[in-house]
Amino acid sequence: MISEKMMKLAQNNSAIRAMFEEGNRLAAQYGRENVYDFSLGNPNFPAPAAVKKAIVDVLDREDAVFVHGYMSNAGYESVRGAIADSLNKRFGTAFGDGNIIMSVGAAGGLNVVLRTLLNPGDEVVTFSPYFVEYGNYVRNYDGVLVAVPANTADFQPDPSMLSGMITPKTKALIINSPNNPTGVVYSAESIRKIAAVLEAKQKEYGTSIFIIADEPYRELAYDGVEVPYLTKFYKNTIVCYSWSKSLSLPGERIGYIVIPGEADEYQLVFDAACIATRVLGFVNAPSLQQLAVARCLEETTDVGAYDTNRKLLYKGLTDCGFTCAFPQGAFYMWMKTPADDREFAGAAKKYNILVVPGTSFGCPGYVRIAYCVAKATIERSLPAFKKLAQEYGL
Amino acid sequence: MISEKMMKLAQNNSAIRAMFEEGNRLAAQYGRENVYDFSLGNPNFPAPAAVKKAIVDVLDREDAVFVHGYMSNAGYESVRGAIADSLNKRFGTAFGDGNIIMSVGAAGGLNVVLRTLLNPGDEVVTFSPYFVEYGNYVRNYDGVLVAVPANTADFQPDPSMLSGMITPKTKALIINSPNNPTGVVYSAESIRKIAAVLEAKQKEYGTSIFIIADEPYRELAYDGVEVPYLTKFYKNTIVCYSWSKSLSLPGERIGYIVIPGEADEYQLVFDAACIATRVLGFVNAPSLQQLAVARCLEETTDVGAYDTNRKLLYKGLTDCGFTCAFPQGAFYMWMKTPADDREFAGAAKKYNILVVPGTSFGCPGYVRIAYCVAKATIERSLPAFKKLAQEYGL
Repeated sequence: MISEKMMKLAQNNSAIRAMFEEGNRLAAQYGRENVYDFSLGNPNFPAPAAVKKAIVDVLDREDAVFVHGYMSNAGYESVRGAIADSLNKRFGTAFGDGNIIMSVGAAGGLNVVLRTLLNPGDEVVTFSPYFVEYGNYVRNYDGVLVAVPANTADFQPDPSMLSGMITPKTKALIINSPNNPTGVVYSAESIRKIAAVLEAKQKEYGTSIFIIADEPYRELAYDGVEVPYLTKFYKNTIVCYSWSKSLSLPGERIGYIVIPGEADEYQLVFDAACIATRVLGFVNAPSLQQLAVARCLEETTDVGAYDTNRKLLYKGLTDCGFTCAFPQGAFYMWMKTPADDREFAGAAKKYNILVVPGTSFGCPGYVRIAYCVAKATIERSLPAFKKLAQEYGL
Repeated sequence: MISEKMMKLAQNNSAIRAMFEEGNRLAAQYGRENVYDFSLGNPNFPAPAAVKKAIVDVLDREDAVFVHGYMSNAGYESVRGAIADSLNKRFGTAFGDGNIIMSVGAAGGLNVVLRTLLNPGDEVVTFSPYFVEYGNYVRNYDGVLVAVPANTADFQPDPSMLSGMITPKTKALIINSPNNPTGVVYSAESIRKIAAVLEAKQKEYGTSIFIIADEPYRELAYDGVEVPYLTKFYKNTIVCYSWSKSLSLPGERIGYIVIPGEADEYQLVFDAACIATRVLGFVNAPSLQQLAVARCLEETTDVGAYDTNRKLLYKGLTDCGFTCAFPQGAFYMWMKTPADDREFAGAAKKYNILVVPGTSFGCPGYVRIAYCVAKATIERSLPAFKKLAQEYGL
């Protein structure tokens, strides 16, 4: 009775829901503090105090009809201008308000961009492992997600593999750096090579191939590692940003899309993305949050706290004998499993540890451990990880 | 280069954008106060003071991780429970939090519901005149919008016409009451007849046909007219509500979906709608606004102010010789045009009057005049309407 697409999704959804229910069952049985739930990318650190101050300031100073009213589907011009200025200052770009569309988080932004670009049967390439929702987003518009196999040496993207997977039907390449789930930051060298592949393929096929840069983790990079700004490497780049992680506002659904003026048929793409924002039912990004984040463009979350967690968890897991990539960004640890990853994630539950199998990211043999949790959760979890390691003879 | 669907929309969009640009051009030339812009359903009255109080209260009392964090895709359980209780009290229904999904406004809710129900080629029926976006929303999921011709006698829906337009492919009927653009409130008698037609057709075809009740204007009804609550008339009813108009929060994108427990395969429909909320990129309705509106369930906007506008405009227009339906709800006047409606709307611009041709709502021969404006705008516009009437010999 419901749509066939949704029926398939409802059936596939059961694995994820089973994990939620398992977490709740374990918490009820052992107490929430004795369950080590590393399954979700929900920041445990509060939004900076500046966010509350900004919201109250907006409510105090601005007219309610303006604050809560409709504006252009692209968002408030003033907000888009302030974001453009901030990006220009940070990255030496030359954006204006005409390059920015406010979006309902990065997930909303990605859907707007994919709806703008895709015809049925068009292909969207991404590197494994990848955020599981990309497949759903691309299928929303009857596109086909094409996954480049993982480069398990260091999880940098492999441009040589990429080249063979681009076809005349390729409309876009989704790049997610800092990466969910590996924590890897794609290097400028990787990006340059990717850009060269795409330039060559655009010429070969006479098509436009967009990089869609999914950047919710841009501000979460450690040890001073630089996260290259992709529009500077490749002109057909569209950026989808979100404040979900950088300001710990995931529930607010606030982000933006950047469409550079130098992109092919910029004006048409921009106009179509504004219309897609409207017809997909977003209409516009939430208005109060638009005005609030514009006052917090210099703010970031406490990266130091994530860094502490990163080091603590990495040391703890490697001391247990596990093999992990030391993450350069985001808040995920990508750990090799000594057995089938789904079996391993199942075994971990016996010790009240919840992690997501790599299979869910198109890359079996690993699990993703989200360390956006309280430090105490990591500390308490380490003896449980030790027992899990011993079960596998590590 | 962009998708073909978007290309068509970008081309059709030009008429609406032309109106925006015309409004700005006129405002620059004559001053904003001398332009009578009745084209948009953007409430000119501010949100009640209780909304600001509620937002500040949430920020002061609740933990920031809770206020701005992820929750279930359906929304906070406490918020959904409070809404269910409020509906039960007002309408004698028996909803619980398991019947409510928080949505990104009614537009987001409609997209979630249509994505949940539609397979390509499925038909969605609605009564003319109708909100122009319905066609776009239905086409998002490759459905076909089927419009029942307008009953120009009184713009109540015509159930006898409806019957002949239901086929085995009909998945839903969208009902919008109080109606945009006519301001008509569908009577209990009309609803009962519609329900009888759908019941008979469900039996005849062995299908489930849903009423989708698009209810952003529910609270805007005048003279004590009752707006029937549709789940009580027909069990396969899904309600899409929004606080855009009732609390003057259109920019915040906050509303909800009701899926009654007695609907066919309720649990499957509910679960699928939660997944659709996620995969379409909404993820969840904006979190702070969820918590704020839950504290304002007894609040409404100043219906008296709209009522004043309604009477003032109706008297002014009929005094000029125009023929209008006296609206029972919403904030639109539906006026018969003495010439082709597009030509008439074009002529109105000469007098700095901006109205939307009925053709945009699938019903030529009328214009929609949105009176959600300042009273002074209506007062100043009446001499201009008088000149317009004289131009047409009224």
